[in-house]
Amino acid sequence: MTTKNLLARSMLAVAVASVIAGAASSALADEPIQPIRPVQQVNLAQVELGKKLYFDPRLSKSGFISCNSCHNLSMGGTDNLKTSIGDRWQQGPINAPTVLNSSMNVAQFWDGRAADLKAQAGGPIANPGEMASTHTLAVDVLTSIPAYVTEFKQVFGTDTITIDEVTQAIAEFEKTLVTPNSRFDQWLLGNKAALTANELDGYKLFKNSGCIACHNGPAVGGSSFQKMGVVEPYKTDNPAEGLSAVSGKDADRFMFKVPTLRNVEMTYPYFHDGEAQTLTEAVDIMGRLQLGKKFSAEDNAKIVAFLKTLTGDQPAFQMPILPASTDKTPPPTPFG
Amino acid sequence: MTTKNLLARSMLAVAVASVIAGAASSALADEPIQPIRPVQQVNLAQVELGKKLYFDPRLSKSGFISCNSCHNLSMGGTDNLKTSIGDRWQQGPINAPTVLNSSMNVAQFWDGRAADLKAQAGGPIANPGEMASTHTLAVDVLTSIPAYVTEFKQVFGTDTITIDEVTQAIAEFEKTLVTPNSRFDQWLLGNKAALTANELDGYKLFKNSGCIACHNGPAVGGSSFQKMGVVEPYKTDNPAEGLSAVSGKDADRFMFKVPTLRNVEMTYPYFHDGEAQTLTEAVDIMGRLQLGKKFSAEDNAKIVAFLKTLTGDQPAFQMPILPASTDKTPPPTPFG
Repeated sequence: MTTKNLLARSMLAVAVASVIAGAASSALADEPIQPIRPVQQVNLAQVELGKKLYFDPRLSKSGFISCNSCHNLSMGGTDNLKTSIGDRWQQGPINAPTVLNSSMNVAQFWDGRAADLKAQAGGPIANPGEMASTHTLAVDVLTSIPAYVTEFKQVFGTDTITIDEVTQAIAEFEKTLVTPNSRFDQWLLGNKAALTANELDGYKLFKNSGCIACHNGPAVGGSSFQKMGVVEPYKTDNPAEGLSAVSGKDADRFMFKVPTLRNVEMTYPYFHDGEAQTLTEAVDIMGRLQLGKKFSAEDNAKIVAFLKTLTGDQPAFQMPILPASTDKTPPPTPFG
Repeated sequence: MTTKNLLARSMLAVAVASVIAGAASSALADEPIQPIRPVQQVNLAQVELGKKLYFDPRLSKSGFISCNSCHNLSMGGTDNLKTSIGDRWQQGPINAPTVLNSSMNVAQFWDGRAADLKAQAGGPIANPGEMASTHTLAVDVLTSIPAYVTEFKQVFGTDTITIDEVTQAIAEFEKTLVTPNSRFDQWLLGNKAALTANELDGYKLFKNSGCIACHNGPAVGGSSFQKMGVVEPYKTDNPAEGLSAVSGKDADRFMFKVPTLRNVEMTYPYFHDGEAQTLTEAVDIMGRLQLGKKFSAEDNAKIVAFLKTLTGDQPAFQMPILPASTDKTPPPTPFG
């Protein structure tokens, strides 16, 4: 291509970008949901290290469970189980929230007990019902593997691996797990053909019925805590009490972080107890309990059709290859 | 680049390739180990489908265990556990062999009870101690997911998903899991600088001591059944009896398929019971029990150094994204 051609193309690209930006800003001004932006400003060296750690089951006591076991990036960043399976097949107390777009959450875990992804990442490693290791053991395992020692040194400039570095790297990787380019975002950004009339009807119902009051912003949720069961109490055998477990305030009982609805088609089953198996059921229950509305089958289907337009580009990366353990690595104890 | 330059480079490439081929054939003629060849002649559509199935935990009853759980492609195609973890954390009876280069095995499983990868793939899905599903349930799950139905139709030209197609696709994917380009293979192919003098000493010891009698061919094993404990009996609590369980012949007791030594640095722990945690230990036991030799610490270290040159290029591919279940998909029953 000649220099002249290149220049012409560049100018065209700038012009197109301006038009899109113009369309986007006018559309965005009107809508309570904003598009997911591709990830920016991450530390790429930390991301690559964090990706390995995310997939490394040696962070668990058994050597069998990794972050990806319950936040499976092949399956919407969840395990698609009501509640998760932990060390020795212990039944987890709560539904595993998706890791996708979780950097946008106001806090982490359903009860918000971790301020951010870094604070969250240390939890499951040392939780006896989940990965069942300890921070000391996890660091000892990594320190026994020269390839990890070298990579931590390259990334953090230190000779000693710490749990702080481990969780920092995992969190940095998780920041890359955003899902832009959903059909809904294409529509938000000005491509009016991206949604069908039925899906658009669903979006209007979603806004006009009040769902949008909690499910808004770029993640369509994740930005506030709300009571599960506003109009009618929510009946469940699950003992989780939500924010009150963190705040100690009785008024916070059954206040849970509003889950993101991004990729919700992939993150079944729904609610903190995972008791709603289908979107149809979830929409029906939300309507009745949170809004005092009984959606008709037709309206429910329209809302579900809209929700399915929120599935974005899933994370695309090469499966990481983990450095081998050495003779000095503490062996896993799955049964011992 | 000009056409003339391109032509010159192409001719140079052909010339270099001829030299390498010449060196390779002369080297190969002398050595009982042959290099791993990059995969050829696979059905790429089946491979892509098989990759999804390999990573899909919905082929298990619990929705938690996939082929990759115990044959983890981030970890040398194994789980690096003595024996595997199955449904409800059942302790498996035997060490999970690596899936890497397994297409070269004379038969599959330690006792050879499956003739090939396709026959093998159906086993764990329906084994109550492993994935604990049934072939009927696995097919029902896949059939409930339109994206799978479409892909099976594209790949196999049929409207109905069958377990035969499922295992065929998984096997085809597994055929791609070869690991060429190890330093040892570079040496075999004529690059004499690829091994250190110490590693080469180890290879000579490996040949001269008799290890090569069983561990030979491109996979450095996998081509025959041999008795575990030739000179001295092998003492283990593991009840596996090997080939006799398949053949019914008493003479086949403790005859196990010779494991491949490709990537052996990554496939710890060792032996059918996983009782040897390190290569040093494995080499020592093999020397004494199979060959009646007590390797000195120095010789043992040389053999281990050679064995570590057998680590090849690990499979490199994008993590597959699995199609979502639907309202009609039978839910997993991890605890029920």
